[in-house]
Amino acid sequence: MANLKIPDHQVAGHQAKTGILGPLIDGSGKFYKPLQDDGRGSHELAFYTSLYSDPRIPSNILNLFPNFHGTQVVEASDGSGLHPHLVMEDIAGSFTNPAVVDFKIGSRTWHPQSSEDYISKCLKKDRESSSIKLGFRISGLRSVSPSNQCWQPQRKFLMDLSAEDVRLMMRKFVSSDGNADQPDCVFASRVYVHVLEELLVLKKWFEVQTIFHFYSCSVLVVYEKDETDEKKRAKAVLKLVDFAHVVDAKGAIDHNFLGGLCSLIKFVKDVLAGLGVDEISNPKP
Amino acid sequence: MANLKIPDHQVAGHQAKTGILGPLIDGSGKFYKPLQDDGRGSHELAFYTSLYSDPRIPSNILNLFPNFHGTQVVEASDGSGLHPHLVMEDIAGSFTNPAVVDFKIGSRTWHPQSSEDYISKCLKKDRESSSIKLGFRISGLRSVSPSNQCWQPQRKFLMDLSAEDVRLMMRKFVSSDGNADQPDCVFASRVYVHVLEELLVLKKWFEVQTIFHFYSCSVLVVYEKDETDEKKRAKAVLKLVDFAHVVDAKGAIDHNFLGGLCSLIKFVKDVLAGLGVDEISNPKP
Repeated sequence: MANLKIPDHQVAGHQAKTGILGPLIDGSGKFYKPLQDDGRGSHELAFYTSLYSDPRIPSNILNLFPNFHGTQVVEASDGSGLHPHLVMEDIAGSFTNPAVVDFKIGSRTWHPQSSEDYISKCLKKDRESSSIKLGFRISGLRSVSPSNQCWQPQRKFLMDLSAEDVRLMMRKFVSSDGNADQPDCVFASRVYVHVLEELLVLKKWFEVQTIFHFYSCSVLVVYEKDETDEKKRAKAVLKLVDFAHVVDAKGAIDHNFLGGLCSLIKFVKDVLAGLGVDEISNPKP
Repeated sequence: MANLKIPDHQVAGHQAKTGILGPLIDGSGKFYKPLQDDGRGSHELAFYTSLYSDPRIPSNILNLFPNFHGTQVVEASDGSGLHPHLVMEDIAGSFTNPAVVDFKIGSRTWHPQSSEDYISKCLKKDRESSSIKLGFRISGLRSVSPSNQCWQPQRKFLMDLSAEDVRLMMRKFVSSDGNADQPDCVFASRVYVHVLEELLVLKKWFEVQTIFHFYSCSVLVVYEKDETDEKKRAKAVLKLVDFAHVVDAKGAIDHNFLGGLCSLIKFVKDVLAGLGVDEISNPKP
């Protein structure tokens, strides 16, 4: 196992740095996430295992999860030596110039069985961020303009956005230059019409599934900004990520995730409607 | 203003007793709810006023709210003399033998602008009850059997029900005798097929409306248990009630209410499916 490196395009979660444990990529489509010691790693591993062995999950839903390749012991990013990692699909890996946004879904990121300490910590963040207000928050966002300007707002800035701010961020995300005062939204219909389709597929499943409750899980959206790459620019990719806090549904739907998902769907529709894009089938450029 | 009396069929909220301030009915279709001093009363009044003057609310949605008749100063139930009351439709008033259930919708009953004390109090209740787990809780339930046996479980008992318990309560609610070990569910299709239709109308609105967020609001379902009354037994009535904690939506849908509503919808569908009732259009007896 050689040539693992720190990913360029990660926008949320623990990030690897010298001396800091974080995810790695192998440059040929795989993403290595260190197994966290506190049970979260083994929890995420257990989730992937049950997800891919549960016959109740329809294949169109499985497509919205990253491919999973088990665990592997590799050299950790912090130089501490060998460490077990979850090995999964590197979602941004196949793109030339990927733009990435991470929506952490749900107004509540903790579940009832969490420790009191963990609940207090999460509740504080949910209240300080837009999670309680909007049902989701933007955890990270990254985009590089054609002139090679990287636009990656600080996490702190992204935390507490109003509904209006979120719509603006979502317009900037699909613009050639996210830093521009007037977002041109040139990628809006290409990205959001497809994202909306995928979100509606997810919604339909979340209205009935009583298998899992997903806390602190994100919808990741990646699209190709390199206009010369005809094949890759065809479609945005949408995947669910981060399953360290998935719990058994105990007979009820995941109303917390579904509520946040429906809120995000409304934002996507608002952005499309604001641009005069017919969201159903016939996107105008 | 004469002959105001304490309602028999109230299942949740502050209840009037000798010396206790609570709602009254006039026996001819009106329900008098004392204006609470702490701002909740004026808040609910403001909500009704804006609801019935807002041209954005479709008429099929307005039908799901109680009719409102302004305020009136009447003798309070606690013998303290004259007190201002909100005057609204007495939803159970036109029934001979009403069965009533109150579903408090949303996994969170507090909004971000609430005081810290109020948030702590609500959060504790939301965690102790089924609200966090299921996205709603049964706040009250009342039904009288043909042999005049009243079934009204204690509030404390109703607070923390599992998903399985809630399905059982919902089956008992549509049975001739709620206390029976084996609920006969004779009223199930008559009640829940219509309830489901109304909930789906609500859901459609909540997926798009960015006018109000409804915290601590309930869906009240009432149906006629007196089988001799052909006219009244025709349809269950579903109304939203309790608007002391409705706030401005600030540009996002009410993901908290919508999530809980979708959860309740799934429970209604489960109960119907368990009885082999085709939920769509052709209910079997």
